Amino acid sequence: MRIAILTFDGFNEIDSFVALTILNRLAGQGWSAQITSPGAEVTSMNGVTVRAQQGLNFAAEADAVLIGSGIRTREYAGDAALLGQIRLDPARQLIGAQCSGTLLLARLGLIGDLPACTDLITKPWVVDAGVRVIDAPFVAHGNVATACGCLAAPYLAAWMIARLAGPAEAEAALHYVAPVGEKAEYVARAMAAIGLARGDGAGNRSARRS
Amino acid sequence: MRIAILTFDGFNEIDSFVALTILNRLAGQGWSAQITSPGAEVTSMNGVTVRAQQGLNFAAEADAVLIGSGIRTREYAGDAALLGQIRLDPARQLIGAQCSGTLLLARLGLIGDLPACTDLITKPWVVDAGVRVIDAPFVAHGNVATACGCLAAPYLAAWMIARLAGPAEAEAALHYVAPVGEKAEYVARAMAAIGLARGDGAGNRSARRS
Repeated sequence: MRIAILTFDGFNEIDSFVALTILNRLAGQGWSAQITSPGAEVTSMNGVTVRAQQGLNFAAEADAVLIGSGIRTREYAGDAALLGQIRLDPARQLIGAQCSGTLLLARLGLIGDLPACTDLITKPWVVDAGVRVIDAPFVAHGNVATACGCLAAPYLAAWMIARLAGPAEAEAALHYVAPVGEKAEYVARAMAAIGLARGDGAGNRSARRS
Repeated sequence: MRIAILTFDGFNEIDSFVALTILNRLAGQGWSAQITSPGAEVTSMNGVTVRAQQGLNFAAEADAVLIGSGIRTREYAGDAALLGQIRLDPARQLIGAQCSGTLLLARLGLIGDLPACTDLITKPWVVDAGVRVIDAPFVAHGNVATACGCLAAPYLAAWMIARLAGPAEAEAALHYVAPVGEKAEYVARAMAAIGLARGDGAGNRSARRS
């Protein structure tokens, strides 16, 4: 599985990197989640400059695409040339967005009138784009998911893993990153947040893998 | 407050960046948490190359220092020249380490025989360095704290904020990054993990600020 983590200047470090670390837990099974940006480098909201691992054309090729948030998303949401470079196909790809990233998904026409998650600052803009915002950390409709609150990033990553490798793999990745002494509780809460309460794993997993 | 996030090749992205984002929530109050590395660039365990914002000499000047984990920490723990460049003063600085970062703190002589947190892979090396490892996400002794499990990074950041700006500021930073719909619960759990149950805030805060 190849996963594009769409990352633009002004990006929130938690959104992009938490998902990247968790998704790459499956590197041994051939997974690769990479920082995907318009330019050769991208600088975060707190001034950290990162070398892009992929260009925006990778978003069209990837098996899954994740759009984090950032302090300049509203500007990008009005940039037709930039939006035109992001070619996503929800029939073939899993697509996730977080906080203000939901605004980009809305502008790309990938949310429609379905409920979605975003932050309070972005909410009026997302509502203006016709989306109904709900007070939840995560929601998925078919192949498109939205999440909000930086630390909902593990939920998006776990949803992608559950959908593409099965719930047991999602639980294992969450277990690894959870705080020591809170692991079982954390995994149960995260799996419930993405609609996969613990114990459902086996059935869903075989269904997904078949 | 100036905070050095010590980051070496092979670093875990969650440890370094989650703390960086949370600590920089106080940028408006003059806080600055920066990626601090031996070279001009540093590459993560999943191949992301980041431009260092500070060199290792910054660790000696900073008000607080945080050491994340990584896949090459055992190698660094045996590198006397590297360890010699990390000059920390627990009498003046707050110092935190996460997972395998605890091994570096132990080799720097900053843990002694006090209980500390680390991961299962690093545990035998930390024990070998004379440290008693406990099954908890976070523990602090005076100005030195250790945490483990990537997603215990917010606990280390919150502890630094609580100590240097007061518990109410720590709660506010945690509230911002917590998942939507789980914020109150998340803040309460995190504050309890760092030994500051909610409601204690006002008293501790004025004590810290006085």
